[in-house]
Formats: sequence, C-alpha cells, structure tokens
Amino acid sequence: MLTLLTDFGVQDGYVGILKGAIASIAPHCPVIDLTHQIPPQNIAAARFCLLNAYRYFPPGTVHVAVVDPGVGSDRRAVAIQIQEGWLVGPDNGLFSGVLQTSPPLAAVVLNHPHYWRTLHPSTTFHGRDIFAPVGAHLSLGVPLTELGDPIDPTGLITLPLPAVTADATGLQGTIQHIDHFGNLITTIPGERLRDRTWEIQFGDRTLPAAHSYSDQPWGSAIALIGSHGWVEITINGGNAQAQLQGKIGAECHLIWLDDRGAIVP
Amino acid sequence: MLTLLTDFGVQDGYVGILKGAIASIAPHCPVIDLTHQIPPQNIAAARFCLLNAYRYFPPGTVHVAVVDPGVGSDRRAVAIQIQEGWLVGPDNGLFSGVLQTSPPLAAVVLNHPHYWRTLHPSTTFHGRDIFAPVGAHLSLGVPLTELGDPIDPTGLITLPLPAVTADATGLQGTIQHIDHFGNLITTIPGERLRDRTWEIQFGDRTLPAAHSYSDQPWGSAIALIGSHGWVEITINGGNAQAQLQGKIGAECHLIWLDDRGAIVP
Amino acid sequence: MLTLLTDFGVQDGYVGILKGAIASIAPHCPVIDLTHQIPPQNIAAARFCLLNAYRYFPPGTVHVAVVDPGVGSDRRAVAIQIQEGWLVGPDNGLFSGVLQTSPPLAAVVLNHPHYWRTLHPSTTFHGRDIFAPVGAHLSLGVPLTELGDPIDPTGLITLPLPAVTADATGLQGTIQHIDHFGNLITTIPGERLRDRTWEIQFGDRTLPAAHSYSDQPWGSAIALIGSHGWVEITINGGNAQAQLQGKIGAECHLIWLDDRGAIVP
Repeated sequence: MLTLLTDFGVQDGYVGILKGAIASIAPHCPVIDLTHQIPPQNIAAARFCLLNAYRYFPPGTVHVAVVDPGVGSDRRAVAIQIQEGWLVGPDNGLFSGVLQTSPPLAAVVLNHPHYWRTLHPSTTFHGRDIFAPVGAHLSLGVPLTELGDPIDPTGLITLPLPAVTADATGLQGTIQHIDHFGNLITTIPGERLRDRTWEIQFGDRTLPAAHSYSDQPWGSAIALIGSHGWVEITINGGNAQAQLQGKIGAECHLIWLDDRGAIVP
Repeated sequence: MLTLLTDFGVQDGYVGILKGAIASIAPHCPVIDLTHQIPPQNIAAARFCLLNAYRYFPPGTVHVAVVDPGVGSDRRAVAIQIQEGWLVGPDNGLFSGVLQTSPPLAAVVLNHPHYWRTLHPSTTFHGRDIFAPVGAHLSLGVPLTELGDPIDPTGLITLPLPAVTADATGLQGTIQHIDHFGNLITTIPGERLRDRTWEIQFGDRTLPAAHSYSDQPWGSAIALIGSHGWVEITINGGNAQAQLQGKIGAECHLIWLDDRGAIVP
Repeated sequence: MLTLLTDFGVQDGYVGILKGAIASIAPHCPVIDLTHQIPPQNIAAARFCLLNAYRYFPPGTVHVAVVDPGVGSDRRAVAIQIQEGWLVGPDNGLFSGVLQTSPPLAAVVLNHPHYWRTLHPSTTFHGRDIFAPVGAHLSLGVPLTELGDPIDPTGLITLPLPAVTADATGLQGTIQHIDHFGNLITTIPGERLRDRTWEIQFGDRTLPAAHSYSDQPWGSAIALIGSHGWVEITINGGNAQAQLQGKIGAECHLIWLDDRGAIVP
C-alpha cells in the first residue's frame, strides 16, 4: 500500500500522472490520497499532515510525499525506513514530524536511476520521474539499499516546531494548523495535560476545556484535545478561524486551574 | 465495496486517515469517495447526495457517511441493512432519504467496541475510530447483529424534505440543492410529471420545460427532469445559481399546460 | 485500468456515481482520477489535461473523458482505439490533442445500447449511463467493434491549438493553460528549442530561460521547458498568474539569443 501527499492540487492531472507512473510499475498497489491541497511549497503543513496520518496505515505502507520547492536544485531525494513502513520524498524537513515520533531505521539517497521512471528525469517533476516510481518499487519489495547509497539518518533535515514553553501558570504555544472546519490546532501536545484542569487564553477570550464539540452549547468557543492529540480551539457548530480571527503562528496560553476552577496562584 | 461521504474536505488528511483505518482491517476492500465536500455539518446536503447515489452501486455495498455535528454527544451510532447493502454512520437523519425509498430491513446501535479501531475512541472523530472500522468489518462479511444491539428501524431519526404542495394549477416546491454547475435542483419529483406538459415559474421568470440542456439555444434558462429524477432549473451553457440568483429554500412553481401550451385554467 | 476526466467537480457525488456504474460492470477495474476540476464545459482545458497525462499510464488503459456541453444533442458518443489504449467520450474535440500525437487506429460510434447502463439513458448524464459503462466493458476486454458501428477516425472533431508562428527573431505563442501553482503554460513546444539559447518576452518583462525552478534566485520570474514539454513561465517560489497578471490567450514571444546572450539580429 502506498499513500500520496503533495501540494499539486487536483485541477491539472498531476496527481493522476503520479498514479499512472505507479501503476506502470506496480499495477496492483492500492494508492491512497492523504491530501493534495498542501498550500504550495508549505513544508510545515506537509510535515503536520503526514505526522498526524501515518500511524493509521497498515504496517509496511509506503508514504510518498512531494512538497518540493527545491526540485532541480541539489537538495537530496531520499527514502527512509521507519518501523511502520517507508517514507519517500525530498530531504527538506517534511518527514521530520514523523521521524521525531518514529526514529529512522535506515535511509538512502535516491541515486540509482534504474528505479526511476526514466534515466533522464525532468528537472521540475521528480514526483513523476523519481519519487512515485521509487515508492512503487518499494511496495513491490525492492530492498531499500537497492534504491541508492546509504546515508546517515541523523543527518536528515529537520523542521522543528516552535517550542512550547512552560511556567508555573501554564503552557505557551502557537497555532500550527487550521483545518477544513476552521479548527485552530495548537502546538501544545495533549499528553502534557493528563489529569489536570485547564483553560485556554486566545486573543482577548478565555475558552473552557471540553471533552467533545458538543460539551458546551451550540456556538460556544471551547478548547479540547483533538483526535490528533493536539490541543485545539474550536466552536461547536461554528468556524473558529472566521469567528476568532485565528491565524497560523498566533499565540495561545494554556492556564492551569485548581480543583475549584480558579487560576493556580 | 465501500463508499465514503463526509464533510471533512480534502485538505487535512482526515479522509486519508479513514482509508488507512479501513485498509488496516480490510486491505482489499475497494473504497469509493462519494464526496467529502458536504458543507460542514449540513445533514440535509448529505441526505440529498446519498439518496441520489446509492442505487448506482453493486449489491452489498457498504455506505459509510459521516456528517456528524453531534459527535461525542449521546446521538446514536448505527448500522442499517437495506436491500441494496448497508449504511453506517450517526443516527441524525442523513440516511432518511435512502430509507424513504429503500426501507430498512434491520438496524443496530454500534455498541460492540470489539469492532471499533480502539476500545477508547476519540470524542471528536468517530469516523476514524468507529464508523470506518465497522464499515470495513461489514465489507468482510461480519453479520450486522455482531456489531451491536438491535434497534427498531422505525425509530431512526428522519429529516423530511419540505412538502411539495399541489393544486389545480400545478405543484409548489423549493430548491433543495445547487450543484457544481450551478443547476438548481428542486424538491419536485419528476415522476409526478409523466405525460403532462408544464413550465416553471421561478422568481419573475417563466422557464420552458426541456428534455436536455441543449434543447434550447445556448444561454437559455430552462427546466428539465435531471438525471437524479428531480425537476431542475438550469441554463444551457451557463450557471443558473449565478444568473438567476438561486438559493436553497427558494420557492418554485410548476404550472400545468394544456395541449396548446396554455396555462390550465 | 481506467481513468476519469470530467468537469463534474467533487461536491455532488457525480464522480462517485460514475465509479459505482463502473464497479457494477467491472468490480475489479482500478479507476484513477485525472481531474474533475476542468472548468465547466471547457473542452480546450480537457484536451490539454488528457494530452499531457495519457502517456504515463500502462498499455491498454481506458481513458473516459466527459466534458460534454452537447449532451442530449446529436453530438456523437465515441470510443477510439490508439496504440496506448482506448478513449471514450463525446466527439467534440477533447481527444484531439491525444490524437494529434497518437493517431487513431479505429473508432466506433456508441450506438449498441447493450453496453450502456440502461436502454433508456438520461438525456443529461451520459457519463453515468453510456461512457462509464462502455469504458468498463472495454476494460474487461470487449472488442471495440462490439460497442457500436465503425466510423472514419479522420472524421473525428478536432480542436486545434492556436498556431505558433516563427520568424527570424523567434517564436510567437500564447498562454494555453494556467496550473494550480499559477505557472503559465504556453503553446510553444519545447522540442523546437533544442540546443538553442533563448529568452521570453511576456507583457513588458523579459524572462531568462532556466533549467529548473530553483536555477534563479527565489522570487525570480523565469521561463523553462516544463515537465509536460511546453515552454512555461513561472516564478521560483511564487505564482506567475498573480504576479505577472497571466491570462489564457495572452501572447508571449520567444527570442533567439546568440552565444553571447545577445538578441539574434
């Protein structure tokens, strides 16, 4: 099984061409679209999407990800083995979310043209000519080491999230993603909140913590730990991006509360 | 075979995650997207789409539909058997268009966690944790009664269409859907028009009945019985939503004509 | 294997219905979406997309393309055999890009209702009732001549590109397509530029030729031979449509340069 994540959009046939290139090598390999709507050349958005999706696929899945502003430059094309499967794409940090949670077991630079679509790849569409074909070969069982020369996985480019800072009053994070529903997804991991009581300050609003969208009345702004594990600001039945003027990078503050719901000292 | 209908959009990877959850259980089950562009939490739009699509799939198809404003509340999660296959999703009326034309044969509430993705499902993403996994198990032949306790199918929530009213002059309906082409799809069923002559009044325009888009000159506003069976207002080569200021809920009047094209007195 | 190209969009379930119709005939046939975002009834855009995609699919692929402003009129429904596979859709010129590069070997008009979904097809949705079912039968090995009466392939409707004109100073073309990234794709074939030095004049700008997007500094407007083989105007890391006010049909001039980079007299 193979997944695709790109910034190609779906208007031009570029994604169909990727699938044609895959089917020409591995005609029986199921291909699943993660998304093709990553904002053009937005590596951080790609990193976020892949990180939140990769755990839900069967063992051995090949994830081909192509958000590649450096195509045709000397940025490296890589394939990486992790416990759950394989990652294929440009070495520009888009895999670094996954790799922070599932360390790389091995990596190669894709310099064996035998596994490309053509010995003379385009300088502008390595998805079609290199990444999709290499992913297809991996899905057929070609060993990683056949695809290119080994590289040190610790040298892969990383794109770290802005740090979440903590003090006695709580945690300071930022908005890292805004989803289709307008939910504002923060950089604060839900696992840091276990068994504690908290609320969120965002702009000039204070939002109560909830367990589900419908915990509070229709139209209420709330915060909860989203299905991806991050603290998320949302409006029950509404659109937090539009109604709270949410923007990527905006700050938010998680405040610890005591048993009576009062701010800790 | 399994279909998916959601309001998730395609930018975030949520749909890919559903497919990963399905593939982890039923790796060979073909999955077809009906749409993921239902307006957020618009149960009526989901009802319309599923109703118009379900008959075109092979017998035994599992339709998983997730437009679920009540996720995490006490709304029921259900699976329903119909003659043509199965329906899986929240019990909020989104299946009621299908069920009006294909009565439920049996239904269960999804309270057997063994068939979920995890014993501890998220409170915000039952698509991933309950509905998609249950659909995958159904596609593998798990009996409906294994998935949860039986419920009375006549107690399923219904979301009725606004009634079409009739008098001697004709039928009064409303716009229930506007499609990608800007066609205005009414609540008037084409089967009520057999062998009669008619025209449509919409706003201050009178539109002739036609058999196909190209029956009248390019740019003409016309009405016809659409491929889904509803009376539809359309502009040959144009966009009726933009050019006629069509809105969901707007009224339209179908007027009977006599053999000479005159309004029936 | 079968591909789909339409102007149906993805909001309404129309594409899902096509796939249901295919699966009802050929349940194991893999179906790949080329795009469903062709601007409504834009045959030229469909012609461009199919032309640039068809070579990347396995031999024997069936391409079903439905951009069909004349549905329900007397325009012909056709299936065409080419060396690489089959084309199925309306005879309105949308296949003429492919056929210019891969001449038709045989063609039939689709007048054998046995291979339709129903003997009484809708007058507005031949994709569902005729083209998808016929494509599904072709994928199962039904011979072309079973599907309808033979027609003269040289009589198929063509939609020629505006001519590229040449003089001693260079080539004059136009913008024929603007992609998701805002790249402006011209009518000038890259194969006419082999081994020569050139630059592009577009509006009041002169753009240097490059080999890849990252050949010039971030933010530079450049021209290159795109992955599809056409000369393309692009901005490294930017959006040429927005930043250069690119429009389909706008003129561009390719100017030959001598070895020292001066304009050839």
